Amino acid sequence: MLDELRSLKEQLLFQGKFEHTEFNNIVIAGMGGSGIAGSIFAEIYDKSPIEVISDYTVPSYVNSDTLFIAISYSGNTEETISAYRGAERKGAQTAAITSGGMLAKICRNSLLIPSGLQPRSALGYMLVPLILSLIEDASKDLREASRVVENIDSSNDRIREDAKNLVLAKKLPVIMGFKPFESVAYRWQTQFNENSKLLAFSSSFPELDHNQIMALENSYGKENLAFYYFSGSSGKVKERIKFTIDLTGIEAKQIPVEGNSRIAQVMHLVHYGDYFSYYAALERKVEPMDVTTIEKLKKLLSQF
Amino acid sequence: MLDELRSLKEQLLFQGKFEHTEFNNIVIAGMGGSGIAGSIFAEIYDKSPIEVISDYTVPSYVNSDTLFIAISYSGNTEETISAYRGAERKGAQTAAITSGGMLAKICRNSLLIPSGLQPRSALGYMLVPLILSLIEDASKDLREASRVVENIDSSNDRIREDAKNLVLAKKLPVIMGFKPFESVAYRWQTQFNENSKLLAFSSSFPELDHNQIMALENSYGKENLAFYYFSGSSGKVKERIKFTIDLTGIEAKQIPVEGNSRIAQVMHLVHYGDYFSYYAALERKVEPMDVTTIEKLKKLLSQF
Repeated sequence: MLDELRSLKEQLLFQGKFEHTEFNNIVIAGMGGSGIAGSIFAEIYDKSPIEVISDYTVPSYVNSDTLFIAISYSGNTEETISAYRGAERKGAQTAAITSGGMLAKICRNSLLIPSGLQPRSALGYMLVPLILSLIEDASKDLREASRVVENIDSSNDRIREDAKNLVLAKKLPVIMGFKPFESVAYRWQTQFNENSKLLAFSSSFPELDHNQIMALENSYGKENLAFYYFSGSSGKVKERIKFTIDLTGIEAKQIPVEGNSRIAQVMHLVHYGDYFSYYAALERKVEPMDVTTIEKLKKLLSQF
Repeated sequence: MLDELRSLKEQLLFQGKFEHTEFNNIVIAGMGGSGIAGSIFAEIYDKSPIEVISDYTVPSYVNSDTLFIAISYSGNTEETISAYRGAERKGAQTAAITSGGMLAKICRNSLLIPSGLQPRSALGYMLVPLILSLIEDASKDLREASRVVENIDSSNDRIREDAKNLVLAKKLPVIMGFKPFESVAYRWQTQFNENSKLLAFSSSFPELDHNQIMALENSYGKENLAFYYFSGSSGKVKERIKFTIDLTGIEAKQIPVEGNSRIAQVMHLVHYGDYFSYYAALERKVEPMDVTTIEKLKKLLSQF
C-alpha cells in the first residue's frame, strides 16, 4: 500500500488528455475511488455546468450538447457502464478514463491509464486527464502539486502520531471541509472506510453552521468522535470555523494545507488523508489493501 | 413545534409561482432549512443542468442563460444574499422565494411566502413554488403528497417508539438513502441536528457499497450508531441494500415509504423524519424549537 501511496507524485506528472469538441455542460459518472476524481475536479472547474453522478442512470437533460465522461479504473464498474450506455443513447459526446475492461472496449474515446493499482490509489491518473483536457495552463500547478505531495512522503511523523491517537482513543473521524475542499473531506471519509475499515463522516462550512452546530454543542456521543478541519480558509469562512469551535466547545484538530495553487492545496490535503487512513489501519492491525467485502458484493450482484 | 409540523399538509397545497422565461441551466442558492428545498427539488427535476449552492459565491459559468433562484426563509441569510448579488452581476435571470427581509427588497421577482415559522418547518412553502414553476402538471402529485403527510399526522405511534428506542440506546442515527431520496436522508440528518440536538449522518446507495461497506463490517464504534434505510427501492439498488445488510451484519431499520408519485414519496419520508427528530427531542427533554447557538453565531458574524 505504501508504494501505491508514494506513486501519487508521479501520477500528478502523467501526460494524458482525452479528445473533445465544444460542449454546453459536463456530466461525469464514476463510483467510489474513481468517482472522487470527478468530484474533486468539479470543485476546481466552474466554466460550465458540471454534474458528477454516482448511479446507474443519467439525467434526462443529457444530449448532444453534453460532454459525458465515464471514469472507472477497472473499466468494469456496473453503475458507470450503465450510465455510459445511457449517455450514448442520448447522443452525448463521450469520453472515458480507464485502465481497460469493458469501458475501454465500448468507448472509442477512451484514455488508457496505467493499471495495477487499487482504484483509490490511482486518483492522480484519473484526475490529471480531466485537468489537462479541460483547464488551460495547469501544468505548472500539477508540478507544484507533485512537489507538495512528495513533501508528505518524506515527512509524515505528525500524521502517524495523529492516526495513532485517533485509534487509541477509539474515536471515529468527522472531517469538516469548505470549498474547494469539500470533496477532499469526503475523500478522507472514504479512505478511512476502505483503508482503516473505520466509519467516518464529513460536513462543510458554512452549511454546517445552519444545522450541525446545534448538535456539536449538545449531542450525546460526541465524545466518540474526533473532529478535523483544514487550514487555508479565509474571510467569513475563517471566522465561522473559529466561532463554531468556540461556541460548541468541540476539540477540533487543524490539518495544515500547503501549496499556492488550488490544485496543489487540494492534493496536499488528499495525500495527508491517504497517510492518515493508512497509519490508522496499521495501528488497528487491519490490512489497508483489503476490500474483500466490496468484491464479495460485486460477485453477488453479478448473478442478477 | 407540533403545530408547525402539522402545517406541512396545507403548505403542500400552497399556490405560488415565480415568473421566468427561457433558460439553459438553473442555479439555486440556499442554506440549511431553506437550501434543502433546492436539493430535494434537484432530485426530482432533471430537464436541465441544475446546481444547488450553499455558499457565498456563484460558479463562474452563471450568465444570462442561467435561471438563478435564491431561497431564504428569513430573507436575511448572508450567504444567499451574497450569492444573489453575484448572480445579478453576472446577468442571470433571477427569482427569490422568501417571507421578506433583505431579499424581498433587492429582488423584484420575489415570491412572498407566509412568515412566522422556523425555516426548517416551512419546507413546503419553499419547495412547492419550485415544483409549480418548473414542473408541468404537478398539482395532482402535490395533493397526493398532502394526503400521505396528513396520514402521518394522524398516526405516528411507531415513529415515537423508534425515536424513544434511539435515545434510550444513546445511539446516533446514520440514514442510508438512494435516489430520489438522497436529500431526504440529508434532511433527516439536519432535523436530528436542529430539533433533537443530535449528531447524525447520511450516505447513499450505490455509492456507499464502494467504500462505507468496508467500515460497516469492521469499524469499532458502530455499536454507537443506529442505521436506517428507506423502503421503495427497486432493481439493483434493492439487491444492494439486502446484500449490504447481510454481508456487514449491521442492524438496519427500514423506514416505510408511502405514496405513488415521487413527490408524495419524498414528502412522506421527509415528514416521517420530522416526527422522528421531534419525538427524539421530547425523549431527550430538549426544546425542538431552540436554535440559540445558530442565532449567536449569526450575531458574532454580523460584527465582521
